[in-house]
Amino acid sequence: MRLSRYFLPILKENPREAEIVSHRLMLRAGMIRQQAAGSFSWLPLGKRVLDKVNRIVREEQNRAGAHEILMPTIQSADLWMESGRYDDYGKEMLRITDRHERAMLYGPTNEEMVTDIFRAYVKSYKDLPLNLYHIQWKFRDEVRPRFGVMRSREFLMKDAYSFDLDFEGAKAAYNRMFVAYLRTFSRMGLQAIPMRADTGPIGGDLSHEFIILASTGESEVFCHRDFLQLQVPGADVDFGNDEEIAGIVKTWTTPYAATDEMHDEAAWGAVADDEKVSARGIEVGHIFHFGTKYSKPMNASVTGPDGKEHLVSMGSYGIGPSRLLAAIIEASHDEHGIIWPESVAPFDIALINMKAGDGECDRVCEELYTALTAAGRDVLYDDTDQRAGGKFATADLIGLPWQVIVGPRGVAAGEVEVKNRATGERETMPIAALVQRFGGRP
Amino acid sequence: MRLSRYFLPILKENPREAEIVSHRLMLRAGMIRQQAAGSFSWLPLGKRVLDKVNRIVREEQNRAGAHEILMPTIQSADLWMESGRYDDYGKEMLRITDRHERAMLYGPTNEEMVTDIFRAYVKSYKDLPLNLYHIQWKFRDEVRPRFGVMRSREFLMKDAYSFDLDFEGAKAAYNRMFVAYLRTFSRMGLQAIPMRADTGPIGGDLSHEFIILASTGESEVFCHRDFLQLQVPGADVDFGNDEEIAGIVKTWTTPYAATDEMHDEAAWGAVADDEKVSARGIEVGHIFHFGTKYSKPMNASVTGPDGKEHLVSMGSYGIGPSRLLAAIIEASHDEHGIIWPESVAPFDIALINMKAGDGECDRVCEELYTALTAAGRDVLYDDTDQRAGGKFATADLIGLPWQVIVGPRGVAAGEVEVKNRATGERETMPIAALVQRFGGRP
Repeated sequence: MRLSRYFLPILKENPREAEIVSHRLMLRAGMIRQQAAGSFSWLPLGKRVLDKVNRIVREEQNRAGAHEILMPTIQSADLWMESGRYDDYGKEMLRITDRHERAMLYGPTNEEMVTDIFRAYVKSYKDLPLNLYHIQWKFRDEVRPRFGVMRSREFLMKDAYSFDLDFEGAKAAYNRMFVAYLRTFSRMGLQAIPMRADTGPIGGDLSHEFIILASTGESEVFCHRDFLQLQVPGADVDFGNDEEIAGIVKTWTTPYAATDEMHDEAAWGAVADDEKVSARGIEVGHIFHFGTKYSKPMNASVTGPDGKEHLVSMGSYGIGPSRLLAAIIEASHDEHGIIWPESVAPFDIALINMKAGDGECDRVCEELYTALTAAGRDVLYDDTDQRAGGKFATADLIGLPWQVIVGPRGVAAGEVEVKNRATGERETMPIAALVQRFGGRP
Repeated sequence: MRLSRYFLPILKENPREAEIVSHRLMLRAGMIRQQAAGSFSWLPLGKRVLDKVNRIVREEQNRAGAHEILMPTIQSADLWMESGRYDDYGKEMLRITDRHERAMLYGPTNEEMVTDIFRAYVKSYKDLPLNLYHIQWKFRDEVRPRFGVMRSREFLMKDAYSFDLDFEGAKAAYNRMFVAYLRTFSRMGLQAIPMRADTGPIGGDLSHEFIILASTGESEVFCHRDFLQLQVPGADVDFGNDEEIAGIVKTWTTPYAATDEMHDEAAWGAVADDEKVSARGIEVGHIFHFGTKYSKPMNASVTGPDGKEHLVSMGSYGIGPSRLLAAIIEASHDEHGIIWPESVAPFDIALINMKAGDGECDRVCEELYTALTAAGRDVLYDDTDQRAGGKFATADLIGLPWQVIVGPRGVAAGEVEVKNRATGERETMPIAALVQRFGGRP
């Protein structure tokens, strides 16, 4: 993409309404625009990151055997009356009346609807296990939405729902999502720690939050230092092997870890002082096992191998991709701006023409742009007539992993400079070597 | 994907509520499920097609120079009061009140919000032309939603918005979208004919609908037979060349074409009888030029080369991907089910194991599944223990372009059968040749 033709509205000033760094940087980098209280548009740069985050979420859900569907945002109130949650949910639920005076609502979550889908089609234990997920907009009418997309009213959520014959099956399904979440966050460059959690309005008796440590985190968390060394399972992990998956969950739930809601002072006291990590955390995922909480009132059952009807045992599994973007920035930035992990960066490379209009600089940039793009790299080519200082500041602010800097002196020597955004390291290299470095042919 | 692990709830019976063939086939093929009046969930097979349709829409929008953003579904009523449309829009608009008694609405379209984004950032003609689009759910509270996703209340829309300094620029932007639409529909296997159209609640003075001919179409259309022979521009069309693009638009707007709303009996009478095509059509896209209709009340202006402020000249450009799926089925099906064009098929190949459990059939199917998947083909492997007749019926119903049939006799001879869903042609070939045929190594 040529910056001269792109829509990247960088803000020079720090927006006053932004209370946390991710909100400030997302506004300044032209990623989002606030449209109403707790409601945001995603501008092109933000949309690209959101797409990359969604892709990783999707790949790991699919790898774990979940199937993608897409449920509507607006739901009929009838389903929620059936489960008994319509009155319970309170003012966070956005209630709507249509032109025929029917009670509708903007879905804050989808347990009821997906249970309705399940019971319409699945009749036998032979069709289990089943896990259906979607990535769809949700609305929760928070009293005080704030912190940008970290706590907005309209937000994107990946929510998965598992259906099994019995607790044993449901536990295996829960474990698969647990491991999928470890991989999902790790691929985004995040160190996420699973912590026993309260189940809140979703209900149930087994629940983990996935928390990343960040000094700006919303809540206090307590965990054993061992977590910082644990290995996240590789792409070859066998989701068909319940025992292997359970073993990984065991490893990741054995050391002490708790949010302040679930904190146990006695157990914490048993951890040696030099092994304690007490920090602030940001919730990036939350998984629940709740058994028959929805299948019972909604009568979702299957015929078992014994020929009898069994209410299915369920769980639900949430990740907020829009919130994740903010969490990634909270965990990865410096005083100059965002530092994107390569897996979710909006572009891989900022190609900076230090003297646009100079014949040789233009020629080399065009060649590099073509070669790097052909090599499958996403390149943002700064071909504008801004001065070099402004270009560097923009590249640092938007946080692309690599900057390739093309100036008249370097070009005369057949060289360009490469800067690593994360480390700040700079390297001068021949033009052909650069293309080779990024996977293309010189 | 192995069918034994997939969620593909095929219906054996014709659902009574379905009035048109696409609705019936989408329900029967397990693509969608109705959740409320005019509201549908997309099941895995339907979601896959929707994704493929969206990808083509997106690629052609990007090729034409538009930038993807994502605006929220819920909008503040304030913006609509500013444009004057809040009272005009009527009962189709889903009006919502939040917990603080603020007036909100579920966006039926986004002219106001995108104009608000534009005016916040763009100040100079140097940043034009600009075209921003998003693919987002919309809600229009139709009195009688029907025909499945063809006329639903919650539906997906790609809406693009162009901003230019003057009419000439806006016309060039309109032309780019016109040509992008020709390419978009053509890539989905549709013959779409642009017809002069009424502008309705969007407003403006220049508008085309893109109509595909289908006997089940919602409205009567009239066009010259020449349209059926016109060439759709290739991927090498130069969207940077206004003259070239205008030439294509001229070619595609010269022969007579009109919906019944805009039908001109006198002009129609001048067409020779044997060149008249009078048929039924389905609208799959609609583009508008409306000048300053929104930029004026919302004060969206830029400084021109003359140093003066100019209200920007705008257009908007809509495609409904959810509706498009139904339109494709209306245009491409037979008595056995759907016939997907290859570009939007949920899977490329149905791999049918006629005798699951037979060692040799299983072995050959596994090998083919691995090889075809490695070659980049999306394969739905029917590894279930259903009888062969049921498998053929399912494969025909869901309409994958190719069926690869593996049975004991063929396997003994080292052969498999390939059936083309569209033509019904069958061919027997050696196993190695099959893999080579679909792009893999034997």
